[in-house]
Amino acid sequence: MTDTTFEPFVRNAWYIAAWAEELDDGLVGRTIMNEPLVIFRDADGKASALEDRCCHRGAPLTSGQVTSEGIECGYHGLIFDGAGKCVRVPGQDNVPSNAWVRSYPIVERHQFVWIWMGDPAKADESLIIDYPYHEQPDKWPHRKTMFPIKANYMMMMDNLMDLSHLGYVHGKTIGGNPNVHTGAETTAEPTERGCLLTRWMMDSPPPPTYVKAVGFKGNIDRAQIFEYVAPASVIQRSIGIDVGKGARENLEQPGLHFRLFHHATPETETSFHYFFSMANGYRQDDPSATQQLYDETYPTFLEDKEIMEIQQQRLENDPSRELVNIKADQALFLARKKLHEMIAAEQAEMVAAAE
Amino acid sequence: MTDTTFEPFVRNAWYIAAWAEELDDGLVGRTIMNEPLVIFRDADGKASALEDRCCHRGAPLTSGQVTSEGIECGYHGLIFDGAGKCVRVPGQDNVPSNAWVRSYPIVERHQFVWIWMGDPAKADESLIIDYPYHEQPDKWPHRKTMFPIKANYMMMMDNLMDLSHLGYVHGKTIGGNPNVHTGAETTAEPTERGCLLTRWMMDSPPPPTYVKAVGFKGNIDRAQIFEYVAPASVIQRSIGIDVGKGARENLEQPGLHFRLFHHATPETETSFHYFFSMANGYRQDDPSATQQLYDETYPTFLEDKEIMEIQQQRLENDPSRELVNIKADQALFLARKKLHEMIAAEQAEMVAAAE
Amino acid sequence: MTDTTFEPFVRNAWYIAAWAEELDDGLVGRTIMNEPLVIFRDADGKASALEDRCCHRGAPLTSGQVTSEGIECGYHGLIFDGAGKCVRVPGQDNVPSNAWVRSYPIVERHQFVWIWMGDPAKADESLIIDYPYHEQPDKWPHRKTMFPIKANYMMMMDNLMDLSHLGYVHGKTIGGNPNVHTGAETTAEPTERGCLLTRWMMDSPPPPTYVKAVGFKGNIDRAQIFEYVAPASVIQRSIGIDVGKGARENLEQPGLHFRLFHHATPETETSFHYFFSMANGYRQDDPSATQQLYDETYPTFLEDKEIMEIQQQRLENDPSRELVNIKADQALFLARKKLHEMIAAEQAEMVAAAE
Repeated sequence: MTDTTFEPFVRNAWYIAAWAEELDDGLVGRTIMNEPLVIFRDADGKASALEDRCCHRGAPLTSGQVTSEGIECGYHGLIFDGAGKCVRVPGQDNVPSNAWVRSYPIVERHQFVWIWMGDPAKADESLIIDYPYHEQPDKWPHRKTMFPIKANYMMMMDNLMDLSHLGYVHGKTIGGNPNVHTGAETTAEPTERGCLLTRWMMDSPPPPTYVKAVGFKGNIDRAQIFEYVAPASVIQRSIGIDVGKGARENLEQPGLHFRLFHHATPETETSFHYFFSMANGYRQDDPSATQQLYDETYPTFLEDKEIMEIQQQRLENDPSRELVNIKADQALFLARKKLHEMIAAEQAEMVAAAE
Repeated sequence: MTDTTFEPFVRNAWYIAAWAEELDDGLVGRTIMNEPLVIFRDADGKASALEDRCCHRGAPLTSGQVTSEGIECGYHGLIFDGAGKCVRVPGQDNVPSNAWVRSYPIVERHQFVWIWMGDPAKADESLIIDYPYHEQPDKWPHRKTMFPIKANYMMMMDNLMDLSHLGYVHGKTIGGNPNVHTGAETTAEPTERGCLLTRWMMDSPPPPTYVKAVGFKGNIDRAQIFEYVAPASVIQRSIGIDVGKGARENLEQPGLHFRLFHHATPETETSFHYFFSMANGYRQDDPSATQQLYDETYPTFLEDKEIMEIQQQRLENDPSRELVNIKADQALFLARKKLHEMIAAEQAEMVAAAE
Repeated sequence: MTDTTFEPFVRNAWYIAAWAEELDDGLVGRTIMNEPLVIFRDADGKASALEDRCCHRGAPLTSGQVTSEGIECGYHGLIFDGAGKCVRVPGQDNVPSNAWVRSYPIVERHQFVWIWMGDPAKADESLIIDYPYHEQPDKWPHRKTMFPIKANYMMMMDNLMDLSHLGYVHGKTIGGNPNVHTGAETTAEPTERGCLLTRWMMDSPPPPTYVKAVGFKGNIDRAQIFEYVAPASVIQRSIGIDVGKGARENLEQPGLHFRLFHHATPETETSFHYFFSMANGYRQDDPSATQQLYDETYPTFLEDKEIMEIQQQRLENDPSRELVNIKADQALFLARKKLHEMIAAEQAEMVAAAE
């Protein structure tokens, strides 16, 4: 079996269950690691995640509604609090002691709703990635979304950590000329929690999206900084600065700046929820700048989705076939290496606990 | 495994294969207990059910047509009589002795077409439920229909025998206020062939459907009488009478009266054909009364369908998990108990026959 | 298991991968015998077939494009020549020696693109069926198409070699009266590579399509000559000549003449690509004659598709059940016999090779 299919999930880690704004519209039903969940805010606004299966007759809690006491099953009206404890059974005074549903640690921070699918005792909030930009609309106005992709979640991590695909999959939009990408100065280095991919394309023609964003007239020095944080996040910075302004020495000067947060939450072994937010660090007082960047980029992720979904089918067809490594895979391998360490550690803990 | 999923079917019992009126429009193709069937009337109007698979090359008989001799396969023209015997092979004079398809006992009575999926020798017509109301258009004008639900057939029996769901699933239509339902005086008792659930909601506000039907001005005494007849029928009477008229003593007096016949014919372990007929015992000379009741009720069954289909998925996810019992399950348990007795008896017979 | 389901494929044989004209529009993605393929012409116009799976990360080559060097993967830009060898990896000078994808022998002849799914060393071009009519637009103007059918490919061979179905499935179009068909003088005889079915319907009413084609005024002598060439081709000639003209003695005289080439390329065990071409040997200078014949016939193949797809389901339901033989199956059995000889020979070779 190659490393691209059907490895065990890392359970003791934080995954994005939802964007905070999704919960503002009511209950969210979502399957994570094959477990159907209902995610909701209680009457006090606190987010919770419960298994989406009433303990009474197995009905979905997502068919119900939030009451002042908790979430009420839409079938026979049992109510569960955010910890999963049944607090009311219609038609009787007592609640059976075995009436509860599984709950999951949830932390809402920086407009992410993070969930811990593993051992609740290990749910260490300090492991949550810090991402203050979502709270800085004046500096980083942003837009967020989510859509499903029918592929193993790591296909997205692979995609993001091998940017040589930009010129082929996205040549007409954010990518630009493939030769620019294959000629990029690329460094890949391990980090404590994953790896870092840095690419410089000096004195290169800006891709169409860049020109639309900030009106470049000539070539630019272009940097892409992608940080993989295992198991399922990639934090992206993209920068374009007019040639001759000393971009390498000063990344913070005016030009094109945007940040993306990418996350792939496993739904099943062969599907994931792709979350991304996109923030622009230019023309911050012009809402159309954010919208334009989003409108330019969103379709490119659908291009990725299309290719990944067939890629997944091809790999599933014969998972035992070896893949062929090329130089562009350097960061991808560092990412996979870190993931494998996490999986190995977690599996070892499980074995130890079972002994 | 819980009792809600994948128990063996009861085969030695009568199930509704179709409404009689369905056969008036021609052949009906329907899968029952995983067996694809063709149900049709012969040239004399007699109903028959055959497996929907020609013995010659396996083509579906539903692609054919009824002739004076029987049903003609739509592929190469073999003709089978209602007993499944091939009576004609185009292009040859003799019919091979092994040319036959399986036939099933069929009884048409009271506008039901009943089928027996088990041992034909045990097909006792006296077991067919008597339901003369379908033949009494002056007293009980009615309307019938059928639709598929992707859940184990017993989910429907559970649904009907635990009426505490009315206030939650159907609050805005036939159900009304949930507190009325959870406060109902409820009795559940075993019967020879199943169980009987009786609920009285004295001096309670009538639900919207009731008001539309007969124009109640104030509170009513409301009764619901649901009889489960194993394995797959529920016979329902619903009654509403103005408060103070002595409803308990005289159920037959003017008011709102309706009868439903519910039946869940297994298509597979995880899907069934839901048949129901609905008869009104008020404003019998006004066809719009029947139509109105039907139009009010039909959407509520789609509400049930929606919740049952997800419930089925949740139970299938992990059939071994125990469910939690509550007081409202009393009739449901009597129903399941009777079903289990039938299953156990049938399995014991099969074992004995095999020895 | 009956002989109608799930026999091994014959791999050492030529199958139609595509019509030549399909490749004129660009890449064709097509699954044959469970193997996803990309079929394309290189910059010189030579047709090739490669597995549709890049050796780098498993992405589909069908997402790419043809360049002067070969087909370029649409994900990271690797380029493969028509033999499957990787000739370029973006971003590096050398190509890893293990960078190749599987290629398949392809021969383009008479507007067929033939593929060999077995041992390339055995790909003998002399086995390709000669069919010059596609190159004779003055004598045999024609039209070709392809559509998918969800059934084992041999269902189509069975269909074509038992023409008693014409009167039942296609009574209103090309078939005409069933009695004409069941009364046809039929001979079935083995040939070196399959079998030959010949049917004469002397002094019979022409079916509607025939009348539209050449305006028959009275009865005709009608011949159907179907040659099965194992494993997956049927070559059809249909002829109608006015009664009294001595049709048997001289088949080539004026009348209605058409030729069809039928082919069923297995996609999976339970689906195939149905290729057919249809050529008319009358009114050759009137393009509407070809179009009219096509428009009359195409819908009849959809009638076959519909019945075969349910037939397949019925046979899959219980593959072990025996079928019942009738006289009309004579040619079908000769065809199956030849197929079984090919399968047996190929299996024996595989066993011998493994020893």
